Parts: sequence; structure tokens; C-alpha cells
Amino acid sequence: MKILITGGAGFLGARLARALLDCGRLSVNGRPAEPVEQIVLLDVAAPAVLPVQPATDQPRIVHLTGDLSEAALLARAIDADTTLVCHLAAVVSGQAEADFPLGMRINLDATRALLDRCHAVGHRPTVLFTSSVAVFGGALPPVVGDDTAVSPRSSYGTQKAIAELLLADYTRRGFIDGRVLRLPTISIRPGRPNAAASSFASGIIREPLAGLPAVCPVAPDLPLWLSSPDAATRNLLRGCALAQHALEDWPVLNLPGLSTTAAAMVEALRRVAGDEAAGRVRFERDPQIEAIVGSWPAAWDDARARRLGFVGDRDFDAVIMQFLHPEMH
Amino acid sequence: MKILITGGAGFLGARLARALLDCGRLSVNGRPAEPVEQIVLLDVAAPAVLPVQPATDQPRIVHLTGDLSEAALLARAIDADTTLVCHLAAVVSGQAEADFPLGMRINLDATRALLDRCHAVGHRPTVLFTSSVAVFGGALPPVVGDDTAVSPRSSYGTQKAIAELLLADYTRRGFIDGRVLRLPTISIRPGRPNAAASSFASGIIREPLAGLPAVCPVAPDLPLWLSSPDAATRNLLRGCALAQHALEDWPVLNLPGLSTTAAAMVEALRRVAGDEAAGRVRFERDPQIEAIVGSWPAAWDDARARRLGFVGDRDFDAVIMQFLHPEMH
Ligand SMILES: NC(=O)c1ccc[n+]([C@@H]2O[C@H](COP(=O)([O-])OP(=O)(O)OC[C@H]3O[C@@H](n4cnc5c(N)ncnc54)[C@H](O)[C@@H]3O)[C@@H](O)[C@H]2O)c1
Ligand SMILES: NC(=O)c1ccc[n+]([C@@H]2O[C@H](COP(=O)([O-])OP(=O)(O)OC[C@H]3O[C@@H](n4cnc5c(N)ncnc54)[C@H](O)[C@@H]3O)[C@@H](O)[C@H]2O)c1
Repeated sequence: MKILITGGAGFLGARLARALLDCGRLSVNGRPAEPVEQIVLLDVAAPAVLPVQPATDQPRIVHLTGDLSEAALLARAIDADTTLVCHLAAVVSGQAEADFPLGMRINLDATRALLDRCHAVGHRPTVLFTSSVAVFGGALPPVVGDDTAVSPRSSYGTQKAIAELLLADYTRRGFIDGRVLRLPTISIRPGRPNAAASSFASGIIREPLAGLPAVCPVAPDLPLWLSSPDAATRNLLRGCALAQHALEDWPVLNLPGLSTTAAAMVEALRRVAGDEAAGRVRFERDPQIEAIVGSWPAAWDDARARRLGFVGDRDFDAVIMQFLHPEMH
Repeated sequence: MKILITGGAGFLGARLARALLDCGRLSVNGRPAEPVEQIVLLDVAAPAVLPVQPATDQPRIVHLTGDLSEAALLARAIDADTTLVCHLAAVVSGQAEADFPLGMRINLDATRALLDRCHAVGHRPTVLFTSSVAVFGGALPPVVGDDTAVSPRSSYGTQKAIAELLLADYTRRGFIDGRVLRLPTISIRPGRPNAAASSFASGIIREPLAGLPAVCPVAPDLPLWLSSPDAATRNLLRGCALAQHALEDWPVLNLPGLSTTAAAMVEALRRVAGDEAAGRVRFERDPQIEAIVGSWPAAWDDARARRLGFVGDRDFDAVIMQFLHPEMH
């Protein structure tokens, strides 16, 4: 089986690739598990440094470095042998807000071109797409349901919401077998801050644990809806495996998450790593970031996703432990 | 003031043009009323035969015949003097389902190009867009609220839902002053049947009144959400006049409508025109049409629209009277 991961050099793309290599076999769209023969990692950025085992991993990995919006690259990336496309490449929230044409070109046009390419190859590949809390906004109920209207307050959220609608219609028409996972904000991301408006949701834990100061740009009690990287990766695998009929006739799913606040996260940090670490977080509100992140849901009803086998995290202390001891997970 | 109506040769476009000529002055976006100096009617079809008064109407009307998706035409249609754009041109539901690329090209790409052109002229024109019941679908609550999730079960509904999201984001960013009116199914359309899946909602009254047989392709008790042409036209004018701030931060409105069924419509026909007329309607279900129309809401909560000055119809008998005696309205 041949799998394409767009955004394959990104945070979740690299983790998903690692998980697929480790599994070795994968069930796609309700079919029996098959060996993972080839993973194509497409990204405009240089390949991520995966902890690969040269003898067993490298023959299975193909890097395609280039812009998803190039038709020729897309044609190379998706062909008659492509069983599964995990479309993770995206211009993230802060950047899509700052550079409107770029967000439209990648998040909307390139996504559509990818779906058209999947349609054109003719064998109805399975397409997994990652959407976000950012499709929601404005006056929201305390718990967002599957039937709550999207009303994004950012261009990123708008582009994700549009891509969701395209995936659903392409699936309904039988062009692809699509599924959309709305991910909570992922925390704790290792590495460096990124251009997402929610970058602080990792930074306020990651930086203090490394002995560095961190600024939290939102109010201490602003609700956040989070998932750990491990839960997110497991849920991506589950999203690939899910049979289309299990989604009935609407392929968009709100994934399980953890409802918390920056203040509660810092308290968890205090419990796990002590006062000194917690003391490294300074609260200084940034109206622009708060406007974006504050428009996202505090929590959503994840009963449908849980029923379909998706998982959440126990509590934020466990998420910090996962970050500190990745080998245990 | 210069106004563009796309789809200006269509049913609602021609009515809106007639109403604007009759009003002579129009308030746009909460500003004081100004004289209607020029109405540009853009359509790929030949101009509608408006009942024009040559001396007073004709100097104010410009016909642009061509495809909205041509950039050069769009540039001619929208310029530095364009105050208001009423974007009514659309590939309607039945046709967008049958010809997917056409619907995407007109309902999505051309709408986006129109919004980009409005942005490019730089003075933030007011843009009115007509959306539809078809953005809804699937398992819906008995009354659809402003906060009910869209989940279209047709490509037309998908394209309308995407256009709504674009209008909202372009408005939020200050590129345009946009407002989206979700219209109920308009009944009774005069003239010939069109390619909309809901075409029967006019045909089952119009044809019998003209002594012709008519087929109703949906179950007698399938709920329908209707608006008369007059209420729709008045609501389009209201949509132009509305100040942006009245829409708060979400510019999509469910317009008032009338909840009825084909059976109740035929009973109204019987009351107004007698047994013979009512006897000309034959029920013969068409699964394809029923799948589309049956996925639409039975009714929606129109409180917000009514608060903002939009109107509905009293009952379906009055709608039939309006059709029979258009001069009285
Ligand atoms: N991490 C989160 O908190 C979160 C939350 C919700 C949704 N998501 C979504 O999950 C997906 C993966 O997120 P992530 O956290 O790994 O983000 P990331 O920024 O680490 O990875 C995205 C990757 O996409 C690549 N990319 C961007 N433009 C491209 C282009 N034109 N052509 C090819 N590649 C391009 C980037 O180079 C990057 O490697 C994204 O779609 C994101 O929107 C993430
Ligand atoms: N009538 C209804 O029941 C109803 C209900 C909900 C929404 N709407 C919406 O209201 C609007 C007007 O509807 P209508 O009933 O007047 O429809 P209509 O079909 O009578 O008019 C649409 C017009 O758009 C024109 N058009 C199509 N493609 C074009 C292109 N490429 N370039 C230029 N013009 C093009 C057509 O020639 C037609 O004259 C549409 O957006 C429709 O989707 C109508």
C-alpha cells in the first residue's frame, strides 16, 4: 500500500509517518490491514529528521519537496497506486491571517486541486483531512455539538470550513472516500514556536520546562480545547482505518479533547515541575491573538468520535508527563 | 449611484431591477437614500423583457451579456463607481448536481472572482448574495436556527455554503460590506419550469391555473419552506439597505418563509381556483428530486430577519392571489 502525507515534514505529518512505519500494517477505510509499502512525504519544507532505522524505514520513504499547489508535483504524489492520502499540509492560523492570498492558495486552492487529483485517478482513494477548532467562532454554546454552525472568525478557519464542505461533497458524489477530523489545539508541541495563533498553548509549558521564560498572550481563564500529540497521532490512524459507512452521511468529526485554561495548565506545570518552572510564565495579553483564540470553542461534544473509537487525554498533568517522557508512550 | 445585478436576466434579477427603477432612490448599507442612476444587468442569457418605460428607464439600464467567469467582463461590470453589487447569478440546484464542473466554475470560482474584483476596486462596495435552503441537509431539527450547522446534500448547496463563508470572511477583513440572504424556495415563479430541483413548487400551481396538467415529484406531506416573489423582492431591497453593523459580526441571514407541503398547496389551489384546477395535479415521486428537496429544512427560525425588517407571506392562499393579480401587489 502506498500512502501520501502532505505536510509530511510538519509536526503531525512526521509523527504520523513514524507511527505508520512502526505499525508496518494499516487498515484503511474498514478494509483488512495491509503492509505499508511506501510513504510519500510531500512538503515545501526540507524533510523532517525522523528517527529512522535506515535498513527497514528508508526503503519505504519517498520525500517530495515542493509546493503542493504545483500540478506536476501533485500528479507525481498521487497516482493509480495511492490508497490513502493524509492531507495535513496547511498554512497555519497566524500566517493565513497575515497573508490572505497565501492561505487561500494553499488551504483552499491546493486542497481542491488535491481532491480533484484524487478524483481523476479514478479508484476513489481514501482522503483524511485535518480541520480545526478554528472553524467555530462568535457566540458559541458552552459545548459545541456536531450540529453547531461553523462561523469562523479567521481566514484560516474559513479556509478549513470550506475544505470540509468540499471533502463532504466529493465524498457524497463518490469521487473520494473522505473523512475530516477537527483537531483540538495540539499541546505540547516540542521544538520551536510556530506561526499558529495557538502557539503559546505549547510554549507556556515547553519553554519553562527548558528553563526559559514564556509569555501567555491570552487571559488566564480563557478556555482552551486541547489534545496531546500522542492522542492526535492515534486519532489520525483511527481516521484512516474508519470505514466510510461508519461516518453515515456526514464525514466531519469533532475529535475528543481536554477543556482547560492557561491558568490550569500553569498549575499542572507547578504540580509536575515545581514553582520555579511555573514562575517562568508571564501573562501579557495580545488582543490580536486573543481575538482569534478567544473565538474558538471551550469544549465540544465528542460523543460521536468516542463512539467511533477516537481517544482523548486523561488530564493535562498526563500530557506534561507524555512530553517529558515520550519513550513511555 | 451605480448598481450591478448579476443574473440580471433571471427571475429575481429582473424583478429586483424593476423594483429599483420604480423606487428611483435606494438606501444602501444604512446610508441615506440616493438616486438610482445606473443599473448594470449582467447575464449570460439574453436580457429579460422588462416592462420598461423607454424614456425614463432605458437611460438607466446597461446590459452586459456574457459569462460572469470572464475576468474582462467582471472588470467592466464593477468599477470605482459601483456602490452596490447584487450577486444573483447562479447555476441552479438541478443543473449544479448534473454538471459538477459548471457549478464549481460559476457558483464558486466566479463568485470568488467577483468578490476579489470588489476588493480590488478599493472602496468597499456593498455586496448582496442570495443563498438558499439547500445549504442545510441531513437530520435537521424541526426548526432550523441561525446556529444550526450547514450540511448540504447537493453540490449547489455546498457551493452556496462556501460562498457564504467567503462573503463572511471578506466582510470581516473589510474587503467588502457583505450580506447573505438565505432565501426560501420561491413560489410561484411565472413562466416556464427551470432546472432547479424545486421547480415543481411553482409548477404544481402555475400549470393547473393555466389549464395544464402538473406532476408533483415529492410526497404530498414533504415539508417545504417558501417565499412569494414579492416578499423575496422586498427582502432583497431590505438586504441592500441594511447597515453592516446591524448584522453584528455574522452577515448570513435566514429570511422569513412559509412552512407548507405540496398537499396543503394543492388544497389552497382548490380554495382559490376550484376542484378542476386542483385535479390537474398528479403525485408521482421522483427519488432524485425527493432526495435533494427532502434534505432541505421544513422551516427555520426567522426571528433575527424579522427583527431586521425582513418580511414573510401571510399564507399560501395569499401567494396564489399575488400570482393571479400581480398588479395589486
Ligand atoms: N497542531 C495543531 O494544534 C493543529 C490543530 C488543528 C488542526 N491542525 C492541522 O493539522 C495539520 C498539521 O498540523 P501541524 O501542527 O503538523 O502543522 P505544521 O505547520 O507543523 O505542518 C504543516 C506542514 O505543511 C507544510 N506546508 C505548508 N504549505 C505547504 C505547501 N504549499 N506545500 C507543501 N507543504 C506545505 C509546512 O511546510 C509544514 O511542514 C494542519 O492541517 C493543521 O491545520 C493542527
Ligand atoms: N428562486 C428560488 O427559489 C431561489 C431560492 C433560493 C435561492 N435562490 C437564488 O437566488 C438567485 C436568483 O435566482 P433566480 O430564481 O432568479 O434564478 P434564475 O435561474 O432565474 O436566474 C439566475 C440567472 O443567472 C444567470 N447565470 C447563470 N450562469 C451565469 C454566468 N456564468 N454568467 C452570468 N449569468 C449567469 C442565468 O442566465 C439566470 O438568468 C440565485 O442565486 C439562486 O440560487 C433562488
